[in-house]
Parts: sequence; structure tokens; C-alpha cells
Amino acid sequence: MKPGDTLMKHYLQFKDLRAQEYAYLFERTREIKKRFKNYEKYQPLVDRTLAMIFEKASTRTRVSFEAGMYQMGGMVVNLTTGDSQLGRAEPIEDSARVISRMVDLVMIRTFEQTKIERFAAHSRVPVINGLTNEFHPCQILADLFTYIEHRGAIAGKTVAWVGDGNNMANTWLQAADILGFTLHVSTPSGYELDQAVAGVRNTACVKLFDNPLDACRGADLVTTDVWTSMGYEAENERRMADFAKWCVDSRMMAVAKPDALFMHCLPAHRGEEVAAEVIDGPQSVVWDEAENRMHVQKALMEYLLLGRIG
Amino acid sequence: MKPGDTLMKHYLQFKDLRAQEYAYLFERTREIKKRFKNYEKYQPLVDRTLAMIFEKASTRTRVSFEAGMYQMGGMVVNLTTGDSQLGRAEPIEDSARVISRMVDLVMIRTFEQTKIERFAAHSRVPVINGLTNEFHPCQILADLFTYIEHRGAIAGKTVAWVGDGNNMANTWLQAADILGFTLHVSTPSGYELDQAVAGVRNTACVKLFDNPLDACRGADLVTTDVWTSMGYEAENERRMADFAKWCVDSRMMAVAKPDALFMHCLPAHRGEEVAAEVIDGPQSVVWDEAENRMHVQKALMEYLLLGRIG
Amino acid sequence: MKPGDTLMKHYLQFKDLRAQEYAYLFERTREIKKRFKNYEKYQPLVDRTLAMIFEKASTRTRVSFEAGMYQMGGMVVNLTTGDSQLGRAEPIEDSARVISRMVDLVMIRTFEQTKIERFAAHSRVPVINGLTNEFHPCQILADLFTYIEHRGAIAGKTVAWVGDGNNMANTWLQAADILGFTLHVSTPSGYELDQAVAGVRNTACVKLFDNPLDACRGADLVTTDVWTSMGYEAENERRMADFAKWCVDSRMMAVAKPDALFMHCLPAHRGEEVAAEVIDGPQSVVWDEAENRMHVQKALMEYLLLGRIG
Repeated sequence: MKPGDTLMKHYLQFKDLRAQEYAYLFERTREIKKRFKNYEKYQPLVDRTLAMIFEKASTRTRVSFEAGMYQMGGMVVNLTTGDSQLGRAEPIEDSARVISRMVDLVMIRTFEQTKIERFAAHSRVPVINGLTNEFHPCQILADLFTYIEHRGAIAGKTVAWVGDGNNMANTWLQAADILGFTLHVSTPSGYELDQAVAGVRNTACVKLFDNPLDACRGADLVTTDVWTSMGYEAENERRMADFAKWCVDSRMMAVAKPDALFMHCLPAHRGEEVAAEVIDGPQSVVWDEAENRMHVQKALMEYLLLGRIG
Repeated sequence: MKPGDTLMKHYLQFKDLRAQEYAYLFERTREIKKRFKNYEKYQPLVDRTLAMIFEKASTRTRVSFEAGMYQMGGMVVNLTTGDSQLGRAEPIEDSARVISRMVDLVMIRTFEQTKIERFAAHSRVPVINGLTNEFHPCQILADLFTYIEHRGAIAGKTVAWVGDGNNMANTWLQAADILGFTLHVSTPSGYELDQAVAGVRNTACVKLFDNPLDACRGADLVTTDVWTSMGYEAENERRMADFAKWCVDSRMMAVAKPDALFMHCLPAHRGEEVAAEVIDGPQSVVWDEAENRMHVQKALMEYLLLGRIG
Repeated sequence: MKPGDTLMKHYLQFKDLRAQEYAYLFERTREIKKRFKNYEKYQPLVDRTLAMIFEKASTRTRVSFEAGMYQMGGMVVNLTTGDSQLGRAEPIEDSARVISRMVDLVMIRTFEQTKIERFAAHSRVPVINGLTNEFHPCQILADLFTYIEHRGAIAGKTVAWVGDGNNMANTWLQAADILGFTLHVSTPSGYELDQAVAGVRNTACVKLFDNPLDACRGADLVTTDVWTSMGYEAENERRMADFAKWCVDSRMMAVAKPDALFMHCLPAHRGEEVAAEVIDGPQSVVWDEAENRMHVQKALMEYLLLGRIG
């Protein structure tokens, strides 16, 4: 594929795909996961190579993309650059031009969303957002699939986001807008969601709550994240104080729907953002959620490289 | 495989397998090595992925597991974490749950044996010990195969361990107990073998000697290790003095059996734990030993993933 | 292959191969690149593993060798050692003996040429120079193929090297000698080419110029490199002053042949060694040049492992 090729898609934000494409991806994920569980070899990406550029450390994203690509028959070049190297030795645009001549697909975990946007603008091959300061679309893709797998369609349901108004929250907001569910958000003061980042069409899909208990009331899914995401370690002490009431515990789960699920993108700190009784309890699907990262990403990579739907 | 599945085996200590299983492994190693030497493709592990977690640096273990897995048709995800990361971002149990959902096999090089035991207890897939403070079973597996390849059965023979009462010595002790040979051990005062670590049934298989010459007398195999293993660099100067008489030189080889072999797990420091005349002499099989790491590990991985013996 | 096997070839300097072998490599590169562009699977190196040892950081060399090997069906073990580890834990000769027992091919990026020469002397498998202080033959191989691809035969043509008398310049000199073209070299005072390093038979192939404009006059190809190569960062400020007149700009391209090409091994610093108008202009083939690193190296690896010409 060439730059400007209208058939080439990147996956830089959740809103880069439409509802119809998500329906297709969830269906493909279900099929691909089933084959994996049955030890059925399915290798549509033989002869294709994924380059992964990590400017932030990662275990889950590394393993899920790398093992996923291998299961699909493809190969991986893992470029762990450490802190913020993209754009240091040469302009990001030059890196994009060179790397995208040699591989078929690029996954980037970086800081500013603008870095991945600049890379994609000069790439000959599809680029996937593996986490930026602003968005984490692959994680939300996994969370949505996990919900659907356990409970069926997400449209019309209510998701409660408890905690930091971060890249996860931004991405949930885009997802609510596109897939037609309601997002309840409760963040401490000073950590609010900046709705301008997500840039959704329909802000009616999000409701804000001061009290996290109110956000959880009637929710089909309760989810949270660590209080101190990567890059904010210096603020850790202050955040521990500010977030103290935003621990997802059994009181919060008690006001959600009786069959509500709990999710967390991990790693989790029990006793901080989530009580052990919740993450290790019967409503928690965090291990399925973690495994599903791999399967949704396999479906995504297959679609970006080989996909053929309207 | 699921946690608790009685068919799933880990390889965390030498005593995790029985003599019958070792006989099978050595036979498989012989066959797998022969195919490698003949450039016969043998890929039973296609579609299987090994995750390697390195908390201590490694070249030999990296290359032998990684190239070995590739030769068997499998893939590798290499998680080099640097110093002691397992258990830092999240409990080891959580890492085990997540990683073992995505791959088929895990190799861990870490510090305390308890870390690998905790990981294995929560893993859905087999776990292999790639070196801990207490044990190094893959290395002894290679050493035993190398002995058998050159000289035939090890049962009834005598192995002399000269030097540090470390993880290698502990593992030799377990091997002597299971495979029925005698282990002579000579360590400097203060570096004795702690037999409680190995926890063998039959302590008659080990004999201790103050003088390393006495340990080597009549031995079929003389083997040693660096005086300062990884993690003990601060003690280097004192160790150099304490170990001065435990250099395996031609005097020691002269009192061993005439056809005795010399082994060393490498890297070696000529003039310290071994004289150049020995490691570079005709009784040394250290390069075969190094290569055999790869072949025994291939047989081990095949057995843990596909093995079907009583 | 065994040490001393007369059929085994290393690629440590450009002069390790003859003109006839280069003709074969360029022909194979053309064929291999065509298949890649057509998504035709071509995997002659299935079951073969390349070990890459990086003592200096690299992105382009990493991706080009690794993706290239995968496209050929082979596997890669990537040993990034950081600064100058080869020879620290054990003699280089021991590392060569061990690693070359486990893999089929070794690529090394290191400091002194003597290190790679010592490794190769004790290796059972072919060794490729992926950059040393003295030479960079894979890059020149890519540059030559790129010239031939765009303009036809290089014999009898003129190449202008503007800038540092470094490993690239040394390698161009060996190439001019073997392939029969003329090399114009202009370096600042104090950064001259040391012709003894290249050790060519016929010094008539090189012409030296004080003024870079004179070096470019009539050239078919103008090429340069960063002013401060890896390892010389401490000299950066002085080099910026010393090299100020050696910026390849449109004045220099204007005195070259009208159809002259511009090349740069990247990363490039626009406004230092090359003007943006040149590297981003119509005579620049730097992106093809970067991609061709991968294709020439695929042909090289195929030849070293499977090649069969006189």
C-alpha cells in the first residue's frame, strides 16, 4: 500500500473505525479465539512482519501483540527504544518512511498522540496505537469484546468509569459515541475527563458524577485503572490522597446491576483503585480481558492487512 | 492445560522428573541432535510460543532456548526485565495468570527459587527453570547428556564438583540421587554445599572432601564453575583468595580416571577456576556441552508440551 | 560448516568478495526484491537462524536484517549487548565457539574491526560485518545496488564522497578498487581518509580534493554521512565548525552530472551535512537506498548460506 491509498487504514483512535467495522472485528475475534482454544492452526499472516516501537515499557502489550502475530503466522521486530527516542536521531517522518519500507504493519506505544499521527501520515503501511497519553483503543477493543462474550451486545448498556480521566476514559468516550452505550464517569476533582480530546459528536452518551457510587448505580460494567499511570510517578503521593474515595469496592459493585462485570486493564494495585474482594471476586473478568487483548489484536491486524468489508 | 491439571508438568528442580523420564529425554535429545546435524527439518512445535523472562543477564541461555525453539518450529517472546522486576509492578501470581493465557510455555531466570515456584503455581502452562539462586537443572541436563554421549551411562560413575557449593552443586546432588551416581564435592570453607536445599532422599550419593585433589581422585567427570557467580560480584576479591586452591589444573585431572572428562558451564576464567591447559586440553568437552544445552532443552520443551510417557 | 572449511565465506570487509560475486549478488537482489514487491513468498532459509550482536545501537540495521531474514523464512536471535560487551565476560574466541554451535549465521555491529576478525576466526558459521569503526560493507552494497537499479552499471562512473574520512569512505574505496569506478573524496583537514585502512591494490581509483565542489564536479553519485558518527559525540561542537563547508547543497549537485543521484545512509541532519533541498529533492534516492539495505542483505545471507558460484 502507498501513502494516500484510500484502502489503507490506520488505527490511531477508537473513532478511526465505524460501528459496522467493530461488529466485523468482534465476529472475527470470536472465530480466531475459538481456533486458538482448539489448537487449530490459522496463519493468514505468513510472510508479514509487524514492527513494534515501544517508547514506554510494556509487558502485556508486548506479549499480546507478539504472541498474537506468531499465532497468525507472522513475524515481529521489536524496537524498544526506551524513553522518547522517536524524533530524536531523525525526524519522525524519516523513521516512518524507512521502517514502513521494510515491514507490513507498525504498532507504536508513545507519549503524545501527535507523534503517532505524524508517523502514520508518512507511513506506507497501517499503524496501530498501542497506547498514547491520549488514547488506548486496543485495550477498549478487548474490554468490549470481553463484555460481549460474557453478556451479549453492548449497545444500550451502561459502563461506569471510576477514577482518572485518562487515555482509557477518553477512549471509552469515543466507544460510547460510536457503539451506542452510556458512559458514567466519576473522577476526583482535578482529574476530570477533557471531552475535547475525544472529540465525540454526541456528548449525550456521557454522564458525569461527583460521587463514584452514583456512577456505578445501575451499571452493566464497572471499570477503573491505576491511580498513577506511567509518566505520572512524581505525583504518586498526591494522587493517593486525591483518589482515596475512588476505590472500586463491594459497596460500588452492590449498586451496579446484579450481573455487572468488573474489568481492569492491569497491572492492578489491590487496596488502591480496586479492593481485592472485587478483582478476585466472581464478577471480575480481568483474566479473560487480558487474554482477549491478544485475540482482538489478531482480528485487528488481520483486518488492517487483509480486511475486505464495506 | 489448566492449573491443577495432573498431566501438566513444570521443570523447576532436577527432582521434578524421574529416572525413567530422564532416560526418555536423553534418547529424544540424541534423535533431535542428529536431525539438526543432518539439516533435517523437525518442527513439532509449530504454532507454539515460549515466553522467556530474564531477571538476570544471559547469552547462552537466551541463544540456546531461542534458537532451539526456532529449530522446533516454535516462536519466542523474550521478556528481559533487568534486575528483579517480577513482582514489582504486580504480584507474581497476576503476571503468571496473564502471561500463561497467551503463550504455551514459560522459561524464567530469576533470583529466589520461591519466585519461580509462585509463578508456576498460578500458571496454566509449563514453567522451566532457566537458573535460580538455588538450582540450574537445564545445565545439568546438558552436562549429563554430554557425558552419556561421550562415555555412555552415568549410573555408577563418579562426578567431582570442585569449587563453590552453589546452584550447580545443588542440582548435581539431586541428579546423583535420582540417576544413581556418586558426587564428590570439594568446596573452600565457608562455601559448603547446603544439602538441605537439594533435599535428596539418599545422602549416601554425596561425599565431601576438604582437598579438591581428593575429590578428583578416580572421578569420571571433573567439573567446576566461576568463583564469583552473578549476584556475588561484591565479594569478588575475597572469593579470589578463598578459592585459590580450587583451580582445576592438570594435577587434578591426573588423579582422575585416565578417560575422565572436564566440563564447565561457561563463561570460564582461565587461570582462576580452571587452568587453560585443562579447558583447552583433550579431556575438555566444554563446546559440546554448550551446544548440548540447546538440544536437551529442545527435548525438554517437546516433552513438556507433547510428551507422552508413563 | 567447520572452521577452516574452504567453502565457508565471511563478509567482514568489502574486499572479501570478488567482482564476479558482486555481479551475482546484485542479480539475486533484483530477483529477491521483485518477489517481495509482488508478495511472492520465497523462503529458502527456513530452519536457519541468524544471531545479531549489537554493541552499538541500531534501528535501520536491526530492522533490515531482521525483517529480511523473516521474509526469507529464517529466524533471528537478537543479542543487544549495549556498550562493548564482546570480550568482557569471556574471550571473544569463546563466544564465537559457543554461539556458532547454535546458529547458522552471525551479524556483528561492534567497534574495532579486530573484534569481528577474531570472532570470525573461531566461528563455525559465516560472520557478517554490520558496521565497525573501520568498515560498513552492507551499506555500500545497498548504495551500489541502488545506483545500478536507477542508472545501470557502476563501472567507469564517478562517486563523490563529501565529508568524514570514516568507515563509509574506507568501504567506498575498497568498492572502487574492486568494481572499477572512480572515487572522489573531499574531507576537511584532520578528517582525511587513511588509505592504509582500506588497503587497496590500485590507488589510482581514488582522487582527493580540498574543495568539496571540485569533488562533486562531474560525479554520477554524490554521497555523504553525518558529521559526528556514533562514538564521536564528544567532538560534536568542533566537528560542526570543521565540517561547515562540507554540506551537500544545490551548488554541489549543480556541478555534478545532470542525472547525478544523491545518497545518504541515514539518519540525516538537514542543514548540516546535507541541505533539505537536496535530500528531499528529485535527485535523492535515500528511501530506496534504505529499503535496499534489506534486499541486498537478503541476497548476501542467501549467498553465504546457500550460494554456489565459482
